[in-house]
Amino acid sequence: MNAIKILQQGLHDFWVRHSLPKEVGVLIALSGGGDSVALLHLLLQLAPFFSLRIQAAHLDHGIRAESGRDVDFVQQLCSEWQVPLTVERLDLPKLARERGQGLEEAGHELRREFLQRTADALGCDYIALGHHRGDQAETLLMRLVRGSGLTGLAAMRPLNDRLIRPLLTFSRKQVEDYLEAIGQAYLQDASNEDLYYTRNRIRHRVLPELTELNPRLGENLVALTQRISSEEDFWQQEVKETLGAVRTMDDRGLWLNRPALLDLHPALRARVLRQALQEVRGDLRGIGAIHVEAMEKLLEGTKPQAEAHLPGAWAGRRYERLWLRPIPPIMAAPFTIEVRGPGEVLLPDGRRMVFSIEAAPQGETPVVVEFPAQLVPFPLTVRSFRPGDRFHPDGAPGSRKLKKFFIDAKIDRETRAAVPLLEGRQILWLAGLARCQQWACVEGEGPVLRVVVQAC
Amino acid sequence: MNAIKILQQGLHDFWVRHSLPKEVGVLIALSGGGDSVALLHLLLQLAPFFSLRIQAAHLDHGIRAESGRDVDFVQQLCSEWQVPLTVERLDLPKLARERGQGLEEAGHELRREFLQRTADALGCDYIALGHHRGDQAETLLMRLVRGSGLTGLAAMRPLNDRLIRPLLTFSRKQVEDYLEAIGQAYLQDASNEDLYYTRNRIRHRVLPELTELNPRLGENLVALTQRISSEEDFWQQEVKETLGAVRTMDDRGLWLNRPALLDLHPALRARVLRQALQEVRGDLRGIGAIHVEAMEKLLEGTKPQAEAHLPGAWAGRRYERLWLRPIPPIMAAPFTIEVRGPGEVLLPDGRRMVFSIEAAPQGETPVVVEFPAQLVPFPLTVRSFRPGDRFHPDGAPGSRKLKKFFIDAKIDRETRAAVPLLEGRQILWLAGLARCQQWACVEGEGPVLRVVVQAC
Repeated sequence: MNAIKILQQGLHDFWVRHSLPKEVGVLIALSGGGDSVALLHLLLQLAPFFSLRIQAAHLDHGIRAESGRDVDFVQQLCSEWQVPLTVERLDLPKLARERGQGLEEAGHELRREFLQRTADALGCDYIALGHHRGDQAETLLMRLVRGSGLTGLAAMRPLNDRLIRPLLTFSRKQVEDYLEAIGQAYLQDASNEDLYYTRNRIRHRVLPELTELNPRLGENLVALTQRISSEEDFWQQEVKETLGAVRTMDDRGLWLNRPALLDLHPALRARVLRQALQEVRGDLRGIGAIHVEAMEKLLEGTKPQAEAHLPGAWAGRRYERLWLRPIPPIMAAPFTIEVRGPGEVLLPDGRRMVFSIEAAPQGETPVVVEFPAQLVPFPLTVRSFRPGDRFHPDGAPGSRKLKKFFIDAKIDRETRAAVPLLEGRQILWLAGLARCQQWACVEGEGPVLRVVVQAC
Repeated sequence: MNAIKILQQGLHDFWVRHSLPKEVGVLIALSGGGDSVALLHLLLQLAPFFSLRIQAAHLDHGIRAESGRDVDFVQQLCSEWQVPLTVERLDLPKLARERGQGLEEAGHELRREFLQRTADALGCDYIALGHHRGDQAETLLMRLVRGSGLTGLAAMRPLNDRLIRPLLTFSRKQVEDYLEAIGQAYLQDASNEDLYYTRNRIRHRVLPELTELNPRLGENLVALTQRISSEEDFWQQEVKETLGAVRTMDDRGLWLNRPALLDLHPALRARVLRQALQEVRGDLRGIGAIHVEAMEKLLEGTKPQAEAHLPGAWAGRRYERLWLRPIPPIMAAPFTIEVRGPGEVLLPDGRRMVFSIEAAPQGETPVVVEFPAQLVPFPLTVRSFRPGDRFHPDGAPGSRKLKKFFIDAKIDRETRAAVPLLEGRQILWLAGLARCQQWACVEGEGPVLRVVVQAC
């Protein structure tokens, strides 16, 4: 097949293989360089088959002397080929300063924003980028250098949301051959690429060196990104499913079931932990292997309660669960409230504790307790846990240290600090958890002190 | 922690983390270079804690002028430290020629063989190699350049069978600091490394360039190899389990269940196909993405029978199964055998077909058929399928093309060519598959022609 056929067939296959729809608008990022010029030409050839509306957009970073020449070139090309063109000019150095970013980072972001904004304004469903195999190999190596995990090594996806890269599996040579075959000129040093210091170093110094060692390097690296990309997709499904099975959420944060996590293969467990962290933080910026290891240490450690401070997150082991939050939990401050008679008191967590005298017992629940009024007289105290407290719970043979009770019942330290203790002659009730074994109400034996905790 | 403590602690941790046993012999590959000298010293420090017997082995490739100097150095060091040393000298250029290999490949293999052989002879359980973080980063990049899949990118394992690499997570600088701290000299340009053209290019030209872009490159790459290694282990388990569920084997080869494969995530399916191919071939040398894709095309294609020739293997779709073999199946040659009377005939596949006249029917099975002897008289023919054959199977409303019957019954083409057809007035029996609808035997209605196929 000749150069023209190969790429034309390639574009058609791309559309079919990714099940892209007909009758859509496609905005092409047109720098004027060979890749984008060839891609525009190819898309125009493809347009009749799928009823595509093709438009072009050009961003002038305004940092090179030739940028005016670039604009002239793309304007002339689009007028010749009758393609609607949007040109925007910006002062990249100024904007980068304002954003506190380097030229490279700011240039990348501004270009993305410009394309998205323009596609939205023009009603274009897709944005076509001219990246080819060589760019993909560069991206893989850049990500490798920057310390990406495997997810990053999938590099650029051929179809990523509305971004499409139809030339990704073709070489620069194939693109250049195409341009030569159609006799089309292009800008030799167009585009924004010279902003990219790291990319240029990789392109001009590292890749040639590696390609000398293996002339098929580009193909191999692209095949590798495809394979990683497919496996990342597998992991995404696997992790989502697994996380769904081991995760619970409440107003205190995200909780992971420790025994279930320990049952997982370490590789899956590490990914599940990363994903849980991402859900808590919003992203994984700055999260590395050592942070995942810190969570694993909590899980595997012998301490039933321990914590780790992570960048932008906090992780705590609480017995058989791992607790993740954006910020550490706040331990309730100690409190003491005297209760002189019937009525209600406000607890520090916003709940209310209501005291009343009733003629007969109405039944207890975890948040309701009843005592014979004459045996448990006012004043009473509602207070938080203090070291040394003793308690005589239901079913226990005698009183014991409240701390021991908390440990046996696997009550986490935040709950311990927040649980209101009702104290009369001794600790009568751990509201919501357990009552003292003594002073049960007996039907028909006089008035009852009823205590109810009401949600805020 | 100082340089000495860090590495000593590191070695101890290595032994504990990998659950390595006490009271074992360890053979260290001692080139005389910094890495191996430091490792020997560290192992000698570690030895009392785990009752290790440390020995050293040095291979003299004999291709450098200084190799005599290297041997002198390691001999003196081992005598000073009282470590038993085995030295072997070989003529690498000559051996490489004999093996038809390059110096690099042959040197690598010969070194491996020497170490294994020496460890066996000395009763050493482990072979310790001095690879450090920089070597690991080089290995990763080399594998990347050579087009390794993800499995190869796990690079060198810290513990791989009997090979151990206790320094793998430490940098060259840490090793050099250690040597300086203990005041130990070493050979600046020792070892076999200068054989390795690719490795040297990566080390001296590519890695410095990349490290300029990110000074933490080495750590990042090693972390990546660790992560890939852990995920490869996950995949290995997953693939083994999945393959076990979709694979059957018989004397014709390995068969995979097509619907089950199509149900798998594409990433898992590709790995399962690779593993199946490995089982058929013994290894995956020369197998790339396109070969896996060829198998996937067979699975996904509309042709119920199709095949692909792969390097060192053959894959065939046979209806709802994928068939893998080291070599293509041989299609049975056409045959025709005339049967004049009772007795037995030898079939081309080695089985025998036995004809007898019985007083009464004894019952049919897939390999036994019976007809009323007077309605199906000798001579009969046993022959292979011919285009145009017609057949009237049990339960069918009339005769139809035998080819159509084969298609409906999903009989693969190799079976079609091999199945013996018994022909009298018409095709009476497809041995093992189906009999003609007519001429069933009725109890008490005279003598019976009984035909039995017997395994070879």
